[in-house]
Amino acid sequence: MIKFETDYQEGASPEILERLVKTNFEQTSGYGEDSHCQRAKELIRKEINRPNAAVYFMAGGTQTNTTVIKHFLTPCEGVIAVNSGHINVHESGAIEATGHKVIALNAHDGLLDAEDLRLYLEAFYADPTHEHMVLPGMVYISYSSELGTLYKKSMLQEIKSVCSDYGLKLFIDGARLGAGLMSDSSDMTMQDIAGLCDAFYIGGTKTGALFGEAVIFPEPEKANLKQFTTLIKQQGGLLAKGRLLGIQFEVLFEDGLYFRNAKHADIQAMKIKKAFSEAGIKFLIDSPTNQQFPILTREQHEKLSSKFSYETWQPLNDGNIAVRFCTSWATTDYNIDELTRAIKELK
Amino acid sequence: MIKFETDYQEGASPEILERLVKTNFEQTSGYGEDSHCQRAKELIRKEINRPNAAVYFMAGGTQTNTTVIKHFLTPCEGVIAVNSGHINVHESGAIEATGHKVIALNAHDGLLDAEDLRLYLEAFYADPTHEHMVLPGMVYISYSSELGTLYKKSMLQEIKSVCSDYGLKLFIDGARLGAGLMSDSSDMTMQDIAGLCDAFYIGGTKTGALFGEAVIFPEPEKANLKQFTTLIKQQGGLLAKGRLLGIQFEVLFEDGLYFRNAKHADIQAMKIKKAFSEAGIKFLIDSPTNQQFPILTREQHEKLSSKFSYETWQPLNDGNIAVRFCTSWATTDYNIDELTRAIKELK
Amino acid sequence: MIKFETDYQEGASPEILERLVKTNFEQTSGYGEDSHCQRAKELIRKEINRPNAAVYFMAGGTQTNTTVIKHFLTPCEGVIAVNSGHINVHESGAIEATGHKVIALNAHDGLLDAEDLRLYLEAFYADPTHEHMVLPGMVYISYSSELGTLYKKSMLQEIKSVCSDYGLKLFIDGARLGAGLMSDSSDMTMQDIAGLCDAFYIGGTKTGALFGEAVIFPEPEKANLKQFTTLIKQQGGLLAKGRLLGIQFEVLFEDGLYFRNAKHADIQAMKIKKAFSEAGIKFLIDSPTNQQFPILTREQHEKLSSKFSYETWQPLNDGNIAVRFCTSWATTDYNIDELTRAIKELK
Amino acid sequence: MIKFETDYQEGASPEILERLVKTNFEQTSGYGEDSHCQRAKELIRKEINRPNAAVYFMAGGTQTNTTVIKHFLTPCEGVIAVNSGHINVHESGAIEATGHKVIALNAHDGLLDAEDLRLYLEAFYADPTHEHMVLPGMVYISYSSELGTLYKKSMLQEIKSVCSDYGLKLFIDGARLGAGLMSDSSDMTMQDIAGLCDAFYIGGTKTGALFGEAVIFPEPEKANLKQFTTLIKQQGGLLAKGRLLGIQFEVLFEDGLYFRNAKHADIQAMKIKKAFSEAGIKFLIDSPTNQQFPILTREQHEKLSSKFSYETWQPLNDGNIAVRFCTSWATTDYNIDELTRAIKELK
Repeated sequence: MIKFETDYQEGASPEILERLVKTNFEQTSGYGEDSHCQRAKELIRKEINRPNAAVYFMAGGTQTNTTVIKHFLTPCEGVIAVNSGHINVHESGAIEATGHKVIALNAHDGLLDAEDLRLYLEAFYADPTHEHMVLPGMVYISYSSELGTLYKKSMLQEIKSVCSDYGLKLFIDGARLGAGLMSDSSDMTMQDIAGLCDAFYIGGTKTGALFGEAVIFPEPEKANLKQFTTLIKQQGGLLAKGRLLGIQFEVLFEDGLYFRNAKHADIQAMKIKKAFSEAGIKFLIDSPTNQQFPILTREQHEKLSSKFSYETWQPLNDGNIAVRFCTSWATTDYNIDELTRAIKELK
Repeated sequence: MIKFETDYQEGASPEILERLVKTNFEQTSGYGEDSHCQRAKELIRKEINRPNAAVYFMAGGTQTNTTVIKHFLTPCEGVIAVNSGHINVHESGAIEATGHKVIALNAHDGLLDAEDLRLYLEAFYADPTHEHMVLPGMVYISYSSELGTLYKKSMLQEIKSVCSDYGLKLFIDGARLGAGLMSDSSDMTMQDIAGLCDAFYIGGTKTGALFGEAVIFPEPEKANLKQFTTLIKQQGGLLAKGRLLGIQFEVLFEDGLYFRNAKHADIQAMKIKKAFSEAGIKFLIDSPTNQQFPILTREQHEKLSSKFSYETWQPLNDGNIAVRFCTSWATTDYNIDELTRAIKELK
Repeated sequence: MIKFETDYQEGASPEILERLVKTNFEQTSGYGEDSHCQRAKELIRKEINRPNAAVYFMAGGTQTNTTVIKHFLTPCEGVIAVNSGHINVHESGAIEATGHKVIALNAHDGLLDAEDLRLYLEAFYADPTHEHMVLPGMVYISYSSELGTLYKKSMLQEIKSVCSDYGLKLFIDGARLGAGLMSDSSDMTMQDIAGLCDAFYIGGTKTGALFGEAVIFPEPEKANLKQFTTLIKQQGGLLAKGRLLGIQFEVLFEDGLYFRNAKHADIQAMKIKKAFSEAGIKFLIDSPTNQQFPILTREQHEKLSSKFSYETWQPLNDGNIAVRFCTSWATTDYNIDELTRAIKELK
Repeated sequence: MIKFETDYQEGASPEILERLVKTNFEQTSGYGEDSHCQRAKELIRKEINRPNAAVYFMAGGTQTNTTVIKHFLTPCEGVIAVNSGHINVHESGAIEATGHKVIALNAHDGLLDAEDLRLYLEAFYADPTHEHMVLPGMVYISYSSELGTLYKKSMLQEIKSVCSDYGLKLFIDGARLGAGLMSDSSDMTMQDIAGLCDAFYIGGTKTGALFGEAVIFPEPEKANLKQFTTLIKQQGGLLAKGRLLGIQFEVLFEDGLYFRNAKHADIQAMKIKKAFSEAGIKFLIDSPTNQQFPILTREQHEKLSSKFSYETWQPLNDGNIAVRFCTSWATTDYNIDELTRAIKELK
């Protein structure tokens, strides 16, 4: 069985494992107070060209989302997300467990529309009973989105502008930031991302690290971060052997490995996309990144799933089924070739 | 200015105030451990013909909703409600503050559709990733609904049936239970309500009490209530002078005052409904209870609002505005006459 | 059975009930947006000579404590209290349910010692691991205390001074503020209290109201209160018929009824204290307010409890038992006489 | 600078890194649904001789503690721990953030006394107001304790017996379980531990893993675990690349590496203990495990800290200072020799 289930089904870039072996017997202080973390932070600050940015490493995505959201919101505030947003669907209620509502707006191919956001906020403040409602405190979006789609820079600028008008913080979930930025469809750099939000994170897990995410506050002086490390600890995101995160992000950012890993995933995904398209198979959504959502007949699904594993995404009303193929930094040409050959035979 | 803003804009039924005066110097234990509370509980048990029902008095509606919901749910579970449900809109995030997601389904004129509920649950358990999602633990509905509408008995039976199939608790918010049951459109009694849910509450605040709600668990042996009083205290619902709640519910239930109060509100509302209808004015929704939602032109609104106060409910796309008129146990014939006269002049 | 169990075992001052009857059919907006609340706030502002103070009315003490504490703390902060403090013992975990630790310091006769507080804070910030600990964010004290004792003004000034040094908010629980201020042992006025804290509340429940507490922020410009009403709602403290709170506090503060009620309780308590003292009975604590804690032998307890009910407070190691007698605005001379006679017979 | 700061200052046992390298390109499903996790669970079940035990892998200790505690408690319950317990001191309020109070009892050299526990529970239920207090729901202890000390088997049996009498769950934090069991002073095996609690965890982080803890429920049929995976996700403990945990615990438990690692740490600690003792230096506490707490004069501290880093634990009243030296699976003989030589020179 060849797996295209997720972008976290293999280990880590070999360079990372090599570095872990090489540094294994160094003695370092715990909790990120070590020189590897310091250097990794410097590399990230350099990448986004913001020497004063605050960078924190956290053990996983759920902790990252809950910590940043809990940090930014008052007890009466909620976080706005699209209904397909990760925090609204697949965090097992972790956001609500911190006491905050996820205010879900309709997604457009996985994306938040700036105009929808503005209309929601206008209506909210026009409602004379809004003091009895959950107050909007921040906006959460994902780049790339949970459906593999991307915001154009102009779309993000508009969202940022609405956020500014209403005093909302903007947080970008970058679990798949690399796959987004490296897509041929992207018109943004990581530096652009940093310039358009109050916080974002660079996902390591899905771009070749064993695990770990880097949270960046581009303008820390506006983010009141004095207690942020304590909050990371409280939310379970503080790794005892913090240097493991520093070492990984050092390797990922010292010579562009992070971006090469992401680019590889995108390239392999485009081959899959092409193969399905040439086989006349349509997609649930037109994704330019490492997640592809072809729509299969039950027969096609039966054939493909005998040799390949992938996620069943959504049964459709016409009896067909939308599925998800994921590629990663580790997806081999061999596996791609096997898959494209099998797709051809579906015709 | 004559007010039709809410059903809690006057004090309490005079019989209640009289009884408070009469009992004022009795000495009783606190927190509901007094003979008035005991008697009031007995009266309610008799009303629903369930001698073993557990009855608790609480200080207000928000505490009642959070306490019952927190009681029934595990940390991983959420509560299903329609998007127009009170707990999804107007509790200032009190449910989420207890750590639980409100899972919002589309409302049909303020009501939950049993078929929608079943489809949601089928899809949920068919989703291979549902272990990473908020687990549905209970259903919350309101009788009458936030839009004044009513479930037919058969609708409630279907909802209860779906709940049973999926192991969900069913909780009925009865802030306006009286207005619902006394409506000519209702095909249910309080006894029926008790037979179709795991818990419901009888709203005192909106039916002639100063304040206070009575929560009923018709089958306490299934509700694991050992720590429920402690939970009421934790959620801020335990009144020190608990007898105040007992005394009020005694007066409301010893000779039917609760139902007379509710019926009066409904009758006065029907007069308003008739007046708007005869003036050719349409409604946002066809409500058979004490909340009426006529759609006014801006001109009509300007005229009416010079003499009457009522809630602006929702601006409509055509420039008109849906508003809400509320009646209560205290709405006088004089005020109704003044209003109907003014409505006639709108034509 | 004559009850001395609590100071909330009777109804309300007759003047309050009269006013409720008189205003019963007034129509007012809900949630405290009425003229009675406005006037009551003015009366309180005048009483403390702070025309700009922010005043909020809440339905009960638990909600008041959780709301103020949740308001002042960040997610990483806890509230310091003495181990005998109400929030550490008798709130059923309501504070922790909002996500915050109660940091308990040793009580001295129910009181917090400023020096203890300073030593705790010094040690806390000297501890190199304090970033992994609950950060102290505020101090909670009670006036009068849960044991009936009182801070001298100088003690409060010292506590305030430590709070200022460490950036902590100071919150005074005034459930029994009246009994404290009216005690012959008190060297403070309500105006003094307002000048020595960031927030305090005036307890209505235990001083002649049916229920209700008034929270005061003497310097609202330092308290960031923009979302406070929403938080009150979220915590279950916002009364629908808010005017009931306004009316009660109007009556209590328009001609000094609040203070007369409290004084009466203190005077009756002093008679009890004298009776026990003259009978050679010792006290667990020397309380100058409306709670008295005599230590009875089992035999004395048996005799007294046949005719009077009071709270058993604490079994002592020598087999004796400390009990609590409470007086209130409603304690009659007759009941006091009966009790003092019975105490004499204990000898 | 030679570090004895913590037992997590180095990487991982080389065998673990080798296995990570070897398995790096295997494709596995995420979230622990892989064959490595399955095998590791089997190895642990075999170690404790309980074929039906439920085993879960989690990313870190904070998540493990919050998840197990949140799982076992109802909303009204708290967890009993000694005041020096990790959850009471160093979790940044993570337990309270889940809504639960840590009920702190006095520690005796870091340990909970069964008699203290029983007296607390007797007094609790004898208190007529206990329904307004946080209900005790479980007991948390650590083996070895935060001060390196160990429960005798008989002590644990007594604690378990009290727990059974009062219906409390017993949870053992095993962050340093290995160092405890391998100590010459221990009279228990991991199998004994499993037989004396409702849940415990085997700490990987401090015994040679990169990170990760294994939670074991010896009798899963009594632990209601249906939603436990969802709760792990909600609390941020579910690792995407779950196989990393499985692989590490496979290596640790397939031929006793876990125990060898722990034994090594204990042996090295005993050398340090001996050196300090021979130098006439006393200890804050008599620890038989990998944490040693010598009491240094300021002068001694100054000398030692110029070459070695260790934790300052507690300033003492006499001006001396208690410090902590930690050893681990990785502590070299060279470093121990350097330290013992330096200690000798302190005399």
